[in-house]
Amino acid sequence: MNRVVIIGSGNLAEALARALAAARGLQLVQIHARNEERGREVARIAGCAWSGDPAALAPADLYLIAVSDRAVAEVAERLPIPHGAAVAHTAGSVPMEAIPAKFARRGVFYPMQTFTKGRAVDFRPIPIFLEASTPELLAELEEVAQRLSDRVIPADSERRSKIHLAAVFACNFANHMYTLGEEIARSAGLDFDVLRALVAETAAKACDAASPRDVQTGPAVRGDRTTQERHEALIADSRMKEIYQTISQNIWETSRKI
Amino acid sequence: MNRVVIIGSGNLAEALARALAAARGLQLVQIHARNEERGREVARIAGCAWSGDPAALAPADLYLIAVSDRAVAEVAERLPIPHGAAVAHTAGSVPMEAIPAKFARRGVFYPMQTFTKGRAVDFRPIPIFLEASTPELLAELEEVAQRLSDRVIPADSERRSKIHLAAVFACNFANHMYTLGEEIARSAGLDFDVLRALVAETAAKACDAASPRDVQTGPAVRGDRTTQERHEALIADSRMKEIYQTISQNIWETSRKI
Repeated sequence: MNRVVIIGSGNLAEALARALAAARGLQLVQIHARNEERGREVARIAGCAWSGDPAALAPADLYLIAVSDRAVAEVAERLPIPHGAAVAHTAGSVPMEAIPAKFARRGVFYPMQTFTKGRAVDFRPIPIFLEASTPELLAELEEVAQRLSDRVIPADSERRSKIHLAAVFACNFANHMYTLGEEIARSAGLDFDVLRALVAETAAKACDAASPRDVQTGPAVRGDRTTQERHEALIADSRMKEIYQTISQNIWETSRKI
Repeated sequence: MNRVVIIGSGNLAEALARALAAARGLQLVQIHARNEERGREVARIAGCAWSGDPAALAPADLYLIAVSDRAVAEVAERLPIPHGAAVAHTAGSVPMEAIPAKFARRGVFYPMQTFTKGRAVDFRPIPIFLEASTPELLAELEEVAQRLSDRVIPADSERRSKIHLAAVFACNFANHMYTLGEEIARSAGLDFDVLRALVAETAAKACDAASPRDVQTGPAVRGDRTTQERHEALIADSRMKEIYQTISQNIWETSRKI
């Protein structure tokens, strides 16, 4: 299994295209995407062909569907993908069954990372979670995934849903904490720049620790109510206050569980 | 003002000691700390003397009180610091007035970073927030701070409280999001290791952006209720569910404000 077509032209499609183009033993034969501008752009980055015409869908061993969660089923249904080919989607929280059963060789190929347009990331440390309709296909997908990453992990749809939820906390919600920090800094006449060194060190420290729980700091883990009350008095927005209180309470209680 | 005594032996005292020892034009003359083992350790790291005996407090131009928030006033009261010396505490959320008024030259010297025992950090990008009882002392503290950092910012107690609150979100709460991510990963039989690449990239991406708001991703910012409902069904703990819902709602609403 070495000829691969990527369907889609979003951030994940671009990141996969970069990684596949650079991988040995794999041939990225086409970016298939309706959005011509982005499709051509991703194809240019990866040095392969683009097509938006279903009739021109290239023959391949593996079709990776990297479109929005909701479009997976429709895209798999609509495009003339040969029924004997392997078809995998790349969405963390979408069941494998979103791919129609007419594809006997269906699966999931989920690289867990936050991908950004125009931003190259090192794929090797990114975990890729795999699911497949047959043990043979799982082995084949493993072979492909190992050409991109050092961390290839089998995960059925339930396990993958949990992993995706974990990623929402560790990535999306952590980023929102940065955003709230920025909002408060702005209320003091400062911008996000004053928080950059702190954000970078917080992540570096957690990554170097056995567990982020071991490096938790701040008034909540110390049970410092005086500081917490001073903080609460500073927060005008009621939902932000609720977030402050709920997270503080959770930090305090989970730290005591140890 | 170049002879400095650090009072305290915690993480911040250690980080300050490292930075002061390496700075040109400043002389770290003593670590004064009751905890002999840690005091000696910090003094060894910084290559200066230690004492735990109040009678042996070294003469200096500036006394930096880097003890726990609650102990600032008591320590400043108890130690025989010459009344003419400059005395500054290093706590983000403690008013300058915690230092007794008998010190005409009192101030605050707050480096905003998360410090860890035994972990050296580059001090130059760390913002140092300064407050002083007189304009002359502010200028003197600025001179000291500029020898350690490129970002020296005056901030009265109210402004500093806000900055400290911003740091709680961007650091302490972001770290707790990692911890919750780890907890969920464990429920899927995986450990924090699978989240490391994601945590590192999330912070790097936010730091490279003009604002973390610009790089927010995930089901909440997309308004993807299907995925959110799937996630909520996976969360058994009621407070974790509340955190999930409140943050998701806030991401959705703040993204729409733009």
